[in-house]
Amino acid sequence: MARKSGRREKANTISDGEAGFVISKDFERFNQINDIFTRAFWDSKIRTKDTDAFFEGHRKQFTVRKSAGFGQKDFALRNASWAVSDMFSNRSETEGKREGFQALMDNETLVAKDKISIEDVKEFTDELKTVAKLFGADLVGITLIDDRWHYSKRVDTRGFKPVSNDLPGSVSHVIVLGHSMNKQLVDTYPSALASAGTGLEYSREAAILTQLTSYIRSLGYDAVGSMNDTALAIPYAIKAGLGEYGRNQLVITPEFGPRVRFSKIFANIPLSIDLPIRYGITEYCTKCTKCSDACPPKALPYGKPTFDSGNQSTIRGVKKWSANCEKCFGYWAKIKTDCAICMRVCPFNRDFSKLRGKIFWKFATGRLQSLALWWEKRIGISNRVKPDVWWRTVRQ
Amino acid sequence: MARKSGRREKANTISDGEAGFVISKDFERFNQINDIFTRAFWDSKIRTKDTDAFFEGHRKQFTVRKSAGFGQKDFALRNASWAVSDMFSNRSETEGKREGFQALMDNETLVAKDKISIEDVKEFTDELKTVAKLFGADLVGITLIDDRWHYSKRVDTRGFKPVSNDLPGSVSHVIVLGHSMNKQLVDTYPSALASAGTGLEYSREAAILTQLTSYIRSLGYDAVGSMNDTALAIPYAIKAGLGEYGRNQLVITPEFGPRVRFSKIFANIPLSIDLPIRYGITEYCTKCTKCSDACPPKALPYGKPTFDSGNQSTIRGVKKWSANCEKCFGYWAKIKTDCAICMRVCPFNRDFSKLRGKIFWKFATGRLQSLALWWEKRIGISNRVKPDVWWRTVRQ
Repeated sequence: MARKSGRREKANTISDGEAGFVISKDFERFNQINDIFTRAFWDSKIRTKDTDAFFEGHRKQFTVRKSAGFGQKDFALRNASWAVSDMFSNRSETEGKREGFQALMDNETLVAKDKISIEDVKEFTDELKTVAKLFGADLVGITLIDDRWHYSKRVDTRGFKPVSNDLPGSVSHVIVLGHSMNKQLVDTYPSALASAGTGLEYSREAAILTQLTSYIRSLGYDAVGSMNDTALAIPYAIKAGLGEYGRNQLVITPEFGPRVRFSKIFANIPLSIDLPIRYGITEYCTKCTKCSDACPPKALPYGKPTFDSGNQSTIRGVKKWSANCEKCFGYWAKIKTDCAICMRVCPFNRDFSKLRGKIFWKFATGRLQSLALWWEKRIGISNRVKPDVWWRTVRQ
Repeated sequence: MARKSGRREKANTISDGEAGFVISKDFERFNQINDIFTRAFWDSKIRTKDTDAFFEGHRKQFTVRKSAGFGQKDFALRNASWAVSDMFSNRSETEGKREGFQALMDNETLVAKDKISIEDVKEFTDELKTVAKLFGADLVGITLIDDRWHYSKRVDTRGFKPVSNDLPGSVSHVIVLGHSMNKQLVDTYPSALASAGTGLEYSREAAILTQLTSYIRSLGYDAVGSMNDTALAIPYAIKAGLGEYGRNQLVITPEFGPRVRFSKIFANIPLSIDLPIRYGITEYCTKCTKCSDACPPKALPYGKPTFDSGNQSTIRGVKKWSANCEKCFGYWAKIKTDCAICMRVCPFNRDFSKLRGKIFWKFATGRLQSLALWWEKRIGISNRVKPDVWWRTVRQ
C-alpha cells in the first residue's frame, strides 16, 4: 500500500485519459458566483433564515440545541477549531477578499531577488515535499497548471459580485497538499462536534500554506496559497496522484480514505510532477451506494457517472458523480453545521495504518474487490459514534 | 515514566518549598524593559549593527553566509517556520503591541453570555487538557495565578517604553502548554536551520493559544493567551508540574527533556491544579556542566544555584542558575540566529519514547544517578549533526 508515486520529470501534460477525466464539448469553467456557499448570499432560491443562521453561527453567535453533539461545548469546539482559519480569512474582508474561500491567501514574505539554483529537479522536489510535511502537510503531490479547473470568475464578498480571477504573475506548477481529518471526530457526523474536524484542518491549511509559500518565496520563486478559492482542488488532487474520485464527491486516498481536505499552492518553480494513479475506486463506487443511501436529504447520485450535473452549483461538461448541492447545503443549513455523513459511512473511512485497514484496502482495490463489496454489504451502514461517547472518552 | 501528575482540587496555594523555589527578601518582579531582546532596541550597551541585523534578518531580509546551515535554504526555512507567529505578532504592532512577545494575544471570540455549568471540576479539567492536545499542545499543566512571575511593566514597542502590565479582568488559573521541538532540527544547533525548530513552535503556540482561548471564551469564561509576553513561563511550567529547572535555563521534562517551549493561558475558570514534581534534575545538573562547557560565549554558570543574577536581564531574588544574557544574546547577534547548543548537548536531549531514552531517564532520576553521570561523562559532549546531513536526509 506504499505510495508508488510515478513521476515524470519533463512531462508537458498529463492526458485526461491518464487522469481518468472525461470532458465533453459543453465544458465550461466554473464561475464561483454559482458556488452554493456564494449563492446562499445572493440567490433568493437558496438564501433562507436557516442559511443566514448557519453563517452567523460560525462567525458570530451560535444557537445551542438540546440534542447531543449540538450543545454549547460542541459548537464552542467547532468554532475554536476554525479560529485560526477565520483569522486569516478575515484579514482582507474589507477589500472584498475572504482569503482561502473567495480570494487567494495573502503573503507578507517578499520574493527574494536571488533565486537558489535547482540543479537536480527531482532531488529538490523530494526535499520540498519533506519541508511541506515538516510544516504539517499529510500528503503532497505536484502537477502542472491546468486553467480549466480555475474559476472563470471569483467573488468579491462586498456585494457578492463576480470579478476577475487571474493569478498574479505567471505560474507553472501546482503543489497539492492533503490534510487528514481526525477519524474520531468524523465518526460523530452529523454534529457540531464532528465539524471541529473540518475546522481543525482549515486552520492547519491556512498555517501550512503561509509557511510553505513563505519558504518558496524566500528561495526566490513566486508562490501563492489557496484553500477553496481560485480553483477546484479535486481535479488537481487527482492529477497530482493523491487519490481517486468517489461517489461521495470526495477524493479517496490510500492513506486516509475519504478523510482528507486539500489545499494548493500555485508556484513558478521547476518541480517534477506526479502521475495520477488508478486504484479501482471508480469500480468500487459504481457497485457501492452506501453514501447515497445514508444521505439524509438524498443529495447524492445513484448509477454511473454522468455529464448531467443537475444543478447550477456543479461544473458542466465533466462526466462524474455530482451531488445536488441545493439539497446538500439545505441540510447543512437545517442542522446549522456541515454534514459529512457521506465521509463517515464510506467503506474507505478506515484506519489504514492498522492491519484490518490494510487488508480491506488490498481486497477493495484488487482482484477480490467483489469480496470487499460483499463484506461491506453484509455489515451494512456503520453506526455514528454518539457525541456523548466522544466527550466521555476524552475525559478519561 | 508515565506522568504521575499529582492534583489538588481545592488547593489555595502551592508553597514555594513544594515548587522548589527559594526566594529572598530582595525579590523584585521583573520589568520587561530589561529583557535582553527589548534592551537590544533601547540600551546602547546592547544594541549593535549585529543586533539590528539579527532582527532585520528575521523580519525582513536575511543575509546568507557560506557556512553550512546558514545558507539561503536554511534562513528561508527558519523564517517560513516563524511566518504564522509573525502574522499574529504583526497584527497590532501599530498600537505598540507585538502580540506574544510584548503584549497578550488578541482574541476575536466574544466571551459567551451563558457559562456552561462545571459540575465535576476534575472531569472538566481532564476534558480541557484533551481539547488542548486536540489543538496540538504536547503538554498541559494547570496552576494558580501568582503575580510574582508577571512583569512589573510590559513594553510598548512604539518607543520601547515600559507601560502598565495589568491583565484584563480577573483571572484565577494559568493553563501552561508545552510545545515539543523537533529533535532532528535541534541536533543541528547552532544554525539557521536549527532555528526553524524554534519558529515552528512559536507558530504552533500562536495557533493553539488562539484556538484554546476561543474555546474557553465560547464556554462563557474569560481566557487570554500569552507566549513570551506578560509573565515568565518557566516558574509557571514548574509550578504546573511539567518539569524541573536545569542549569541550561530550560525546564527539563520527562517527555522531551529540555526540548520544549511553553505558552500559557490566563483564565477565569474553575480547574483542578497540578502539583510540582521533583525528578532529581537539580541534583543531576549540580554535578553536570555539559551545557556550560559547550556554550561558545561562556554565558552559562558553573557551581550551584545562587541569588546573584549577575546582570540586569535576569530576575532578582530567586536562587537559581542564571545565564549572562548579554553574552548569550551577543552570540545570537553574531551568528544572526538563535543558539540553543545548551539544549542540544543536554544529556536529557534524548528520545524518551525509545527504550534507550527510557533507561537513561530511569537511571538519571533514580538512585543510580551517579551511573548516568558517569556514562555521560564517558561519552562526552554530543556532536552537532551537520546541517548538510539534515538536508541530505530529507531528500531521501
